[in-house]
Amino acid sequence: MAEYLPLFEELCRLTREAALVESVEALLGWDERTYMPEGGGEYRAEQMTFLSGLAHQKRTNPRLGELLGELTASPLAKDPHSDAGATIRQLQRDYHKRCKLPQKLVEELTRATVLGQQVWVTARKNNDFAAFAPAFERILALKQEQAQAAGYVSHPYDAMLDDYEPAALTADVAAALAGLRDQLAPLVQAILASSRKAPVELLRRRYPQPHQESFAKAAAEAIGFDFRRGRLDVTHHPFCSGHGPGDCRITTRYDEWFFPSAFFGVLHEAGHGIYDQGLRADQFGLPPGSYLSLGIHESQSRMWENLVGRSLPFWKRFFPKLQEAFHESLTGVALEDFFFAINHVAPSLIRVEADEATYNLHIIVRFELEQALLTGDLPVSDLPGAWREKYHSYLGIEPPDDASGCLQDIHWSAGLFGYFPTYALGNLYAAQFFAQAERDVGPLAPQFEAGEFAPLKTWLAEKIHHPGQCYTAAELVQRVTGAPLSHEPLIRSLKAKLAPLYGL
Amino acid sequence: MAEYLPLFEELCRLTREAALVESVEALLGWDERTYMPEGGGEYRAEQMTFLSGLAHQKRTNPRLGELLGELTASPLAKDPHSDAGATIRQLQRDYHKRCKLPQKLVEELTRATVLGQQVWVTARKNNDFAAFAPAFERILALKQEQAQAAGYVSHPYDAMLDDYEPAALTADVAAALAGLRDQLAPLVQAILASSRKAPVELLRRRYPQPHQESFAKAAAEAIGFDFRRGRLDVTHHPFCSGHGPGDCRITTRYDEWFFPSAFFGVLHEAGHGIYDQGLRADQFGLPPGSYLSLGIHESQSRMWENLVGRSLPFWKRFFPKLQEAFHESLTGVALEDFFFAINHVAPSLIRVEADEATYNLHIIVRFELEQALLTGDLPVSDLPGAWREKYHSYLGIEPPDDASGCLQDIHWSAGLFGYFPTYALGNLYAAQFFAQAERDVGPLAPQFEAGEFAPLKTWLAEKIHHPGQCYTAAELVQRVTGAPLSHEPLIRSLKAKLAPLYGL
Repeated sequence: MAEYLPLFEELCRLTREAALVESVEALLGWDERTYMPEGGGEYRAEQMTFLSGLAHQKRTNPRLGELLGELTASPLAKDPHSDAGATIRQLQRDYHKRCKLPQKLVEELTRATVLGQQVWVTARKNNDFAAFAPAFERILALKQEQAQAAGYVSHPYDAMLDDYEPAALTADVAAALAGLRDQLAPLVQAILASSRKAPVELLRRRYPQPHQESFAKAAAEAIGFDFRRGRLDVTHHPFCSGHGPGDCRITTRYDEWFFPSAFFGVLHEAGHGIYDQGLRADQFGLPPGSYLSLGIHESQSRMWENLVGRSLPFWKRFFPKLQEAFHESLTGVALEDFFFAINHVAPSLIRVEADEATYNLHIIVRFELEQALLTGDLPVSDLPGAWREKYHSYLGIEPPDDASGCLQDIHWSAGLFGYFPTYALGNLYAAQFFAQAERDVGPLAPQFEAGEFAPLKTWLAEKIHHPGQCYTAAELVQRVTGAPLSHEPLIRSLKAKLAPLYGL
Repeated sequence: MAEYLPLFEELCRLTREAALVESVEALLGWDERTYMPEGGGEYRAEQMTFLSGLAHQKRTNPRLGELLGELTASPLAKDPHSDAGATIRQLQRDYHKRCKLPQKLVEELTRATVLGQQVWVTARKNNDFAAFAPAFERILALKQEQAQAAGYVSHPYDAMLDDYEPAALTADVAAALAGLRDQLAPLVQAILASSRKAPVELLRRRYPQPHQESFAKAAAEAIGFDFRRGRLDVTHHPFCSGHGPGDCRITTRYDEWFFPSAFFGVLHEAGHGIYDQGLRADQFGLPPGSYLSLGIHESQSRMWENLVGRSLPFWKRFFPKLQEAFHESLTGVALEDFFFAINHVAPSLIRVEADEATYNLHIIVRFELEQALLTGDLPVSDLPGAWREKYHSYLGIEPPDDASGCLQDIHWSAGLFGYFPTYALGNLYAAQFFAQAERDVGPLAPQFEAGEFAPLKTWLAEKIHHPGQCYTAAELVQRVTGAPLSHEPLIRSLKAKLAPLYGL
């Protein structure tokens, strides 16, 4: 055993150095989207291209291959769930995957997506898909190249998925989402047929931005986001970005005439942030200190946003404070009406503002379109039309323009293909974990009502955050909940909340 | 000639890559002082240590030595003032200087000074010199090691000066500052003996921060700072930081009960920013696109702060707007009283708030103390006492505590030894350039009164900014003004403004 320790330490040192370069690149990305002056964009692309290339070099350093070759057969790798075993297993997987990608392709992807995001910001603002199309075509061609270089099981989209939900296959995800849809569709239909309507108008009164900001910050802090190791800023599209073991930043955007968009956005990003802050600092940059998959990451954000933040016990605690902060708009409003309003279910155009139930239909649209784009079955120029068709057929509505249609999300401009389905997987994981937490910790409702979120956060830290990548997502779900991933907990949770509201 | 071009292009490519790494490091430094959450400090030191080491590696790449060896004797180097000639000459100088510094020392200096600045922020806040001393002793030991490694002409402090005012010698700077002091002392004495007192009380009324911010931004924009390629934020100690050809950021701090500190701070940093923004973008990262020396940099900030911003014509333009923005405090105040107040001369404790005339005495204190610290004649533990003594003897006052004494400036915590004298050199250069600009462009007073600052900015861009490092500072002064550096323009400028105010 002892003879392998120096090799293992070298492996960790080289890997941590790569992670450091990536953390710098992440900070530059955060800065680009928050505070960078407009004139800095062109050179920022150069800086990020350089850092991305340097990180790729470090991740594909042949010395890593030698070390992993020695260590994979060593006693250190014996227990795949130990820190050392998981480190060796995951780095081995990562190394071989990356070595298939030429550095030139990695650098071109970085350059194309940094510029792509800049073009997208303007194109969306001007509702001008044609201005975005050439940048998008370039990104798509590079993603197709990437799929060929990386290889895949049966669908080029497998290679896309693997970057975000490791080892997941297109066919399996398609089946899972179809299963979810089959249970969800009758529920949504029943809701639409109900005579009860949520009083959503009260959310569209005036909610001044400074009060929204301080209220959202206080709520994020209450559920456990640590502002000594994080911050909250404003961007076009909300995100969460980590830059080291003590530096995780979240963003949101404010709408003074629609309360939920910033507030639940902050809870969502704070959920991501709590996961990031819950990872083991001493393992930063190594697999045991890294998030497991985007689906698991999303399970954390969705849990705090929906299962906690849209629950009645949560608002029993916070509604009086909310009325105080926004007395102009909320005086005389009953808690029950507010609670119904924030759980309103109706087909809508903007994914990030969609309700908990129809949200997954937005994902299915994107999941299907990006498979067709990748295979070339759908040319980029036909995307706006195809988008409108799918929205019509799945949600019964059509966007009046591309800004609220296929230009609404940053993902494609950033080259994030295969990313969307992890949102729906996150919803499934979240409900299953939450049901288990309630079994392990005891009833959560009275705790939320008392403002106590630490027991849930501690449970999540122990069960989900601390293991890092020591288990696969499938193993973790089985280990934590004693069962494989299932649609049932999510459907049960939605029915338990929505049936009484809509009198089903 | 043609045979050397590929070598020259390789030299430029390698150098631009080093500059890119430095620009990333600068951005991380900006972020550390503006928006980084507290918990990010430790890992930030790791990130900056890594980047600093990487930049040093790139600046001392033996391939640079080979290329420079070939190119120094080539026809490209023939005209030392051409872009190619200056590039080869300056890079040759830089390469040989750096090769003398071991990478370990460079990395330790970065780590010690990143942590030193973090310790300093707290020590200053708590007025606790003892908490800062160990970090400072470590930095000092490393600077002494640096002086020995770099070598020097006759005083170890020469090696410190050379980093900021290339080729300047301690003895020469000491003589220059003594010469300035000899002319300044009688002027200050005469002012102190005058029965006329500036109505400074009116600057200590209430000036709400949001109005200060928008007023200062408008003024910075009016004199020519480009906010599309820059921004303004809040930090403990104001600074200007460039992160690429289109990204230069300035900072300030606000005192709601003292108007000048933020306003003239912003004009000062905007002056630095206008220099940075005036450098040739196509030469970014190469000597012709880099600032010449800190003294020349400071001449630009001092010119906009003092020779423009504290002039009567400037306030003939801006005082009505100022009265409008701060009507509560300025209604009924006469322009002449305001003008006298912002040109008030009196010994004071805080360098950055010192008046234009006594400012240089603050510099002389630091210049003398840091020489004594470097040689070891002054132990760190004796610094607070020595500081008080010098202030007593040169300015006739003593700080009540170290926070307003030797802890007031960030420089030493950042390892910036030899930096302070460049502030006084900046004052001298500024007055001499300004007098020449007036000869070349015509009377500036009526232009300022009309809000026209572009002619001066254009003159500076052409004469000072565009040449970059194609001339030494001494050559540039001679070339632009037709005379060597002299105290006379500064003394003349001070007398012309102060004599009428104080009835001398």
